[in-house]
Amino acid sequence: MEMTEMNKGILFIISGPAGSGKGTVVRELISSHSDIKLSVSATTRSPRPGEENGVHYHFITKDEFERRIKNGEILEYTTYCENYYGTPLKEVNEALERGNDIILEIEVDGAMQVKKKIENSVTIMLTPPDSVTLENRLRSRGTETDEVIKWRLERAKEEIRLLPDYDYSVINEDGMSDKCAEQIYGIICAEHKRTLHTRDIIKKFI
Amino acid sequence: MEMTEMNKGILFIISGPAGSGKGTVVRELISSHSDIKLSVSATTRSPRPGEENGVHYHFITKDEFERRIKNGEILEYTTYCENYYGTPLKEVNEALERGNDIILEIEVDGAMQVKKKIENSVTIMLTPPDSVTLENRLRSRGTETDEVIKWRLERAKEEIRLLPDYDYSVINEDGMSDKCAEQIYGIICAEHKRTLHTRDIIKKFI
Repeated sequence: MEMTEMNKGILFIISGPAGSGKGTVVRELISSHSDIKLSVSATTRSPRPGEENGVHYHFITKDEFERRIKNGEILEYTTYCENYYGTPLKEVNEALERGNDIILEIEVDGAMQVKKKIENSVTIMLTPPDSVTLENRLRSRGTETDEVIKWRLERAKEEIRLLPDYDYSVINEDGMSDKCAEQIYGIICAEHKRTLHTRDIIKKFI
Repeated sequence: MEMTEMNKGILFIISGPAGSGKGTVVRELISSHSDIKLSVSATTRSPRPGEENGVHYHFITKDEFERRIKNGEILEYTTYCENYYGTPLKEVNEALERGNDIILEIEVDGAMQVKKKIENSVTIMLTPPDSVTLENRLRSRGTETDEVIKWRLERAKEEIRLLPDYDYSVINEDGMSDKCAEQIYGIICAEHKRTLHTRDIIKKFI
């Protein structure tokens, strides 16, 4: 991650269908590379015990969330169990200006939306290795009916079909989330070597 | 370098001005990663003791070389001390079809020429860290007059100005060619994760 001081950070949008294990992989990536920061989402749900405002989430009211959506201050958002979850635009931009890389872990439908809004952002799709593994992972949660699982499986497959729209894809095999995280870290390092980000070196030869 | 059997290899064009140390870095890269092959050039110069035809160079006659140029069978070429040096197109294409990655170490003026001819090839420019280091490296050869060194320095700086035309650039610091080679290897691995090369995974979910 050697960067010159002038360089802006890069936004990496990591996404993938249910069963891709993106949550685990992103946690792995963040915990082994302290130079990479995860964007802190805003939410309207109540804090759970142990959750800190500004660390786990920015906890805000529904009115405030809707005001921010209206003002274009939310990069992307989704609703789950009647609560909003979203990414504050200002925080992302400030971190990038400071030269920090930001990881955004979001659902597939939001990824392309965000890529268009943040210049030079990079999209990475995580996938399971195949459809048998995908189904096993969805079933192993054990909490859903067959019908729900079937629906989630179909939805996951549809999302994987969007893979060509992404810049990169990485396979997350069972029990190999550390390897998957390292492959993503390799992509992050390589992206910093793109001449889009390295062209300032020319100044050292004038 | 995990690739599915169907995938074609990728051509990596590694270039840089005199003093970038590209020769050393590429040797380092090849020797530590047996899965990466260096393209074998054709030349009209005579073999030196120990040089094997087809290993160090394809040794061919001047007439044959000129016939191949005329027929478009040479991807790029240059002349040095009245001898031709060039890259046979057929060999590169065959290796890529077999799924092998190929490294082409060439001069800056040939790199863009080749990129246009080989689809999805990737260009990487190696640079010294700054102009003082560049000049030291050019002087340390000790065989050239001040005038020649000055000319080579100016030419190197002009070539570095072409960096934005390349996909990636990597700095080769003094005594760090192994680190530089690993950064290039990182770029190679990351390029294989581009959805251009990974989209076949979708077939596993149909």
